[in-house]
Amino acid sequence: MPHHRSAFFISDRTGITAESLGHTLLTQFDSLDFQRETVPFVDTVEKAQTLAERISAVAERDHLRPLVFTSIVNPEVREALRLSNVILIDFFETFIGHLELELGQKASLTVGKAHGMINEEKYDHRIEAVNFSLNHDDGVKLKDLDEADVILIGVSRSGKTPTCLYLALQYGIRAANYPLTPEDLDSPTLPKILLPFKDKMFGLTIDPNRLHHIRSERRPDSKYASMDNCRREVNEAESMFRHHGVPFISTTHKSIEEIASTIMHKAALGRKF
Amino acid sequence: MPHHRSAFFISDRTGITAESLGHTLLTQFDSLDFQRETVPFVDTVEKAQTLAERISAVAERDHLRPLVFTSIVNPEVREALRLSNVILIDFFETFIGHLELELGQKASLTVGKAHGMINEEKYDHRIEAVNFSLNHDDGVKLKDLDEADVILIGVSRSGKTPTCLYLALQYGIRAANYPLTPEDLDSPTLPKILLPFKDKMFGLTIDPNRLHHIRSERRPDSKYASMDNCRREVNEAESMFRHHGVPFISTTHKSIEEIASTIMHKAALGRKF
Repeated sequence: MPHHRSAFFISDRTGITAESLGHTLLTQFDSLDFQRETVPFVDTVEKAQTLAERISAVAERDHLRPLVFTSIVNPEVREALRLSNVILIDFFETFIGHLELELGQKASLTVGKAHGMINEEKYDHRIEAVNFSLNHDDGVKLKDLDEADVILIGVSRSGKTPTCLYLALQYGIRAANYPLTPEDLDSPTLPKILLPFKDKMFGLTIDPNRLHHIRSERRPDSKYASMDNCRREVNEAESMFRHHGVPFISTTHKSIEEIASTIMHKAALGRKF
Repeated sequence: MPHHRSAFFISDRTGITAESLGHTLLTQFDSLDFQRETVPFVDTVEKAQTLAERISAVAERDHLRPLVFTSIVNPEVREALRLSNVILIDFFETFIGHLELELGQKASLTVGKAHGMINEEKYDHRIEAVNFSLNHDDGVKLKDLDEADVILIGVSRSGKTPTCLYLALQYGIRAANYPLTPEDLDSPTLPKILLPFKDKMFGLTIDPNRLHHIRSERRPDSKYASMDNCRREVNEAESMFRHHGVPFISTTHKSIEEIASTIMHKAALGRKF
């Protein structure tokens, strides 16, 4: 008998919603071992039947009822997954009836709007935000900074680039970033070029130990990666943030999602698409 | 009386899960006008009480009960949001009891694991995937292509860059991309440099009209953007894909999420973090 329990996240579109809530629920049972599989684009009764057979076989093999999380909109497709030997968690059906009653309106049962392309204009805005963030990565391009929604500053390897890309992709935010170099840090004042944009700045800081570790992977035994240098750079960057009243957060124990949503929240930025 | 109904997505962490499922449900009622607000990091009873007062005021103002979607783990924090004048949709509570019974185990009630940093090693892998994708964007760097999980090819502006970044950020996939230039397209065979990696290729194509529109925004009235040229490039790229049996999809009516999850599915790639 296997030690794991199988868990399926099934969707008629990308699977992002079913996976997101499913993972959230499963993390509450972290002593158990789950074998996870996401199955997107289950949008016909036929596909659902084929999948149902496969899941039934897994149930027999495991001698443990698999968990089946679904967010499928079409009732007939959903019905084909209503197996006797699984634990079914149906995100759509559970809530939609309640909402229909409360809102006094039937669900339109249209598939795929949540992560689909809503309209081309909004979509273009999002792509432009990605391009803006790419072009303004690592202080490469300093003009057009007035078009930025936010400018992240911090020492090298404090997490600026992935955060900017996430902000652009997930929220349509034009996020530039500027790396504070050792020269910039010699003085506690912001680099002159950035002064006009003080109100858009957001600082990232990081625990010097973690920074030392990250930089050592990149350039072992360098001055750049040395513990002393990391400690000094982080101290000076934080002094600079405080000197100018630039809000800042530590990225040390945070995922990209957490850093990005904290910035959205603290800088009072709104989703742009 | 306002025409909109207020909808709150409330979370003790990033708000991504509550927002994701909440949006999915609301798109089913698309003739209604919702005023949406995401409130992340509601992780104390005090914060929940302050928020509850604000939501109550909104309910009075709107003369319509607000929708409150929550995924809060802590029962006391959740309790503070149990208002009489809202429609409460509690993603966590609704399912967690059922799961506890089925799995024969109590939920650990730990907050913030779903989008938190699970462990540093996995996190570093994700950041490396982002760096890899940045370094291998637009055919900039052709060595190390053997380390890529997937290589996207397609004509200029077919959607390669945002898709690669999304694959890296969301799934930890090392996604390189290579733009097919007019010179590459003169022959129906893949550029020589790419031949050894044929099995990792995935093609992106796009409707010539949409491509013409996108390119015209960038370089109006250029040969690059002309309808004739767009049609020719797309035809030649698709011939190349067919010639080599490279799988490909059209990005025309797809969001980045849909393109990325389709590639994950069709190329049988698994999440890497």
